Amino acid sequence: MSAHEAQTRSVLLESLRRLLRRGASGHVVNLLSKFRPADVAALFKDLNERQRREVFVALASRDPDRAALVLRELNVHAGLELLDVLDKEQRAMVMGALTPDDAAELISEMDEDGRQELLETLRSREAREIRHLLEYGEETGGRIMNPEFFAVKETVTAAEAITALQDRGAEVEVPFYIYVVDERQHLLGVLSLRQLLLVRPGEQVSHTMTTDVVSATTDMDQEEIARLVARYDLLAIPVVDGQHRLVGVIAIDDIIDVLKEEATEDFYRLAGTSEDERLHRSVFRAVRLRIPWLLASLAGGLLASQVINHYQGVLTKVVILAGFIPVILGMGGNIGTQCSTIIVRGLATGRIEIRELWRVIFREVRIAMILGVIYGTLLGLGGLFLLEISPSVALLIGLSLLASMLIAALFGSALPMLLSRMGVDPAVATGPLITTSVDVMAIAIFFQLAVLLVLD
Amino acid sequence: MSAHEAQTRSVLLESLRRLLRRGASGHVVNLLSKFRPADVAALFKDLNERQRREVFVALASRDPDRAALVLRELNVHAGLELLDVLDKEQRAMVMGALTPDDAAELISEMDEDGRQELLETLRSREAREIRHLLEYGEETGGRIMNPEFFAVKETVTAAEAITALQDRGAEVEVPFYIYVVDERQHLLGVLSLRQLLLVRPGEQVSHTMTTDVVSATTDMDQEEIARLVARYDLLAIPVVDGQHRLVGVIAIDDIIDVLKEEATEDFYRLAGTSEDERLHRSVFRAVRLRIPWLLASLAGGLLASQVINHYQGVLTKVVILAGFIPVILGMGGNIGTQCSTIIVRGLATGRIEIRELWRVIFREVRIAMILGVIYGTLLGLGGLFLLEISPSVALLIGLSLLASMLIAALFGSALPMLLSRMGVDPAVATGPLITTSVDVMAIAIFFQLAVLLVLD
Repeated sequence: MSAHEAQTRSVLLESLRRLLRRGASGHVVNLLSKFRPADVAALFKDLNERQRREVFVALASRDPDRAALVLRELNVHAGLELLDVLDKEQRAMVMGALTPDDAAELISEMDEDGRQELLETLRSREAREIRHLLEYGEETGGRIMNPEFFAVKETVTAAEAITALQDRGAEVEVPFYIYVVDERQHLLGVLSLRQLLLVRPGEQVSHTMTTDVVSATTDMDQEEIARLVARYDLLAIPVVDGQHRLVGVIAIDDIIDVLKEEATEDFYRLAGTSEDERLHRSVFRAVRLRIPWLLASLAGGLLASQVINHYQGVLTKVVILAGFIPVILGMGGNIGTQCSTIIVRGLATGRIEIRELWRVIFREVRIAMILGVIYGTLLGLGGLFLLEISPSVALLIGLSLLASMLIAALFGSALPMLLSRMGVDPAVATGPLITTSVDVMAIAIFFQLAVLLVLD
Repeated sequence: MSAHEAQTRSVLLESLRRLLRRGASGHVVNLLSKFRPADVAALFKDLNERQRREVFVALASRDPDRAALVLRELNVHAGLELLDVLDKEQRAMVMGALTPDDAAELISEMDEDGRQELLETLRSREAREIRHLLEYGEETGGRIMNPEFFAVKETVTAAEAITALQDRGAEVEVPFYIYVVDERQHLLGVLSLRQLLLVRPGEQVSHTMTTDVVSATTDMDQEEIARLVARYDLLAIPVVDGQHRLVGVIAIDDIIDVLKEEATEDFYRLAGTSEDERLHRSVFRAVRLRIPWLLASLAGGLLASQVINHYQGVLTKVVILAGFIPVILGMGGNIGTQCSTIIVRGLATGRIEIRELWRVIFREVRIAMILGVIYGTLLGLGGLFLLEISPSVALLIGLSLLASMLIAALFGSALPMLLSRMGVDPAVATGPLITTSVDVMAIAIFFQLAVLLVLD
């Protein structure tokens, strides 16, 4: 945020707070109408809960369409909180002004009672559309598509298509592609608004449309759909059902949301937590989400303790060995994280493909081999000259570092590739699992080597 | 990739390889013309180097426009490799068919000689446009914009604008927004193609245009631009210079590339390497990129060794303590990574803002406090009953685990927030730096507590 933006924002906030104190809700709505919905949503962060509610109620009662636009810019959790403050009628007006896919996203997060109550207050067509979307699985094309789109029959002429588009209100989701369907809604082709302008007015759309349409299906995963849109540089993608009937469209702004969401999901998962944490501010929720992986990590740690205790004899004789445990585990952990991060991201963006399993693992292991030799030598020499350890201990820690880095690279690259091949999201079980298991293996090797190299 | 896609691909590859063996390059080009550029680019991965070159030369000599479309779907490194195989004339044809921004991206990665030679072979207008783009800094609006766009003067009528658009060839970058400028190219407003269809043909565009245009500047960072486009759900963003003159546009497909690239950059940086690794397959390059952070990590490790050696007296008396080093460091490392990942990603997506410094740190520390008490108790009890350690050692490891997690959360959240406040990319110095410094601090606390609690 630039200094100028920050200043504008603080001036605006000041006026808004003053109007709220005076209870001038009409003026509040007027003031906000000068800003884009995304900016109003951002402003909500700077208001306290009471102010936020007052503003939203004012908006909802005076301008439900705009309240809906602001609502869709908020995260689901914040949105539900505000909806809760509205009375039944206001809520129905705002929800009715949302596109069915946005409404479905919010409703899917409500409890059963709230959901029923709300659906009953909506007009029957809206409620039916939303119910229909909710029947599709989460994160599928069917769930995120907008069932209100613009399509024409194949026999329509260019001029007729333009007139039809002009007659439609502002509610057209994708106003730059015209989809062409047959009598039974089967998707036949697509043409852009610009193509439409280039043909003779009397020409049938079926003569100029592109028939090779990239489409999604209702049961396709949203990540897969986003990949298609990005790959083919589309502005929107039509969604068809099992009979290839056009049932909805997904516009590029929703695709961008999916791309961001999926990247965030991978960041959170790699760190051993869940993207649910993003939506809920509660500390206890975060604790609950992080407990499982940290528990696995604790169990691994206790296992490592057992291994070390098993070698107490060695440690008692050469107590200096304990000092090298952190560096050997730390370096292994770092390179394991590098491998798994690169691979999880590569798989997500399509740059790495599952069938490249061996090439990818081999590459990471070679990198680890070179780095391991470099750092093993450095650590050995550093120990020898700085910490004045014996040559055999220097050899031991150098070799152990190399071994730890090799194991980490092998494990850190093989695990995500194998998970992905088995159809499991490689980001889920990667982060803490790799560091913990590499810890145990590296420690065992370290002490076993110690028995061989350092004890007489 | 579905089973069907995989099958189609393998059939296609078979035909392609057969045609190449027969030297039927005309047929190769025909076969490839049935596929989208992105699919042809993906196919290149399955060809060996010789085949890939043959196919690209065939494409470039028979259909340079299509070769250019394929070229822009490849990563820069692969693209430069293929351009190298073409003769001077073919190369000029293919580069001339690229949009100036795509050409500039490739040329910026060439060495000085190759760059000069190529620019000399291009037509003077193209070369001038590309040189001009290259004057802007990397990853700025000026560098990634397309200087060929469609704009009309304010006095033009809707009908005239439509005719002007029809007269332009296929090269219009953003065919769904019409930008309106004054005599001196100052950006005045924008209207969508659809808005244009809704007004009377004789109406001046200046009467219906939106004057409140979201625009980028030539020196704006591409990440910031992508954030604007995503925030306001735009399909393209106009780029203006210091005098607010319209000098280019950036379409949504390039914005999607930026979003993906920036997320990938953050993934790589968090893991302690650089996104350059993505572009180059060389193992040695990867080694070079990873060396600095691992070196920092090694230095930290040696420091930790020193700390442990300092407490050799304690270790000699209670050798079982060594066994708890991995779990205390590992749990700290995990929670530190969680904090820094959540914050780096939150800052990148705009969900967390820099001014929320204290709220964010406080939240992470509270989470760590709860988790630390839970896991500290579990570890203490686990040690007491499973490993049969003394109550004072159990107390020691429980408290040390709590301390390690608290320090990690504090450090893991404060460091990225402070870096970001100082204008440094928080992803750069985060990953290995946090784990390493938390290691040293946690070890020092562990042994100091040991002196207090366990020694008589």
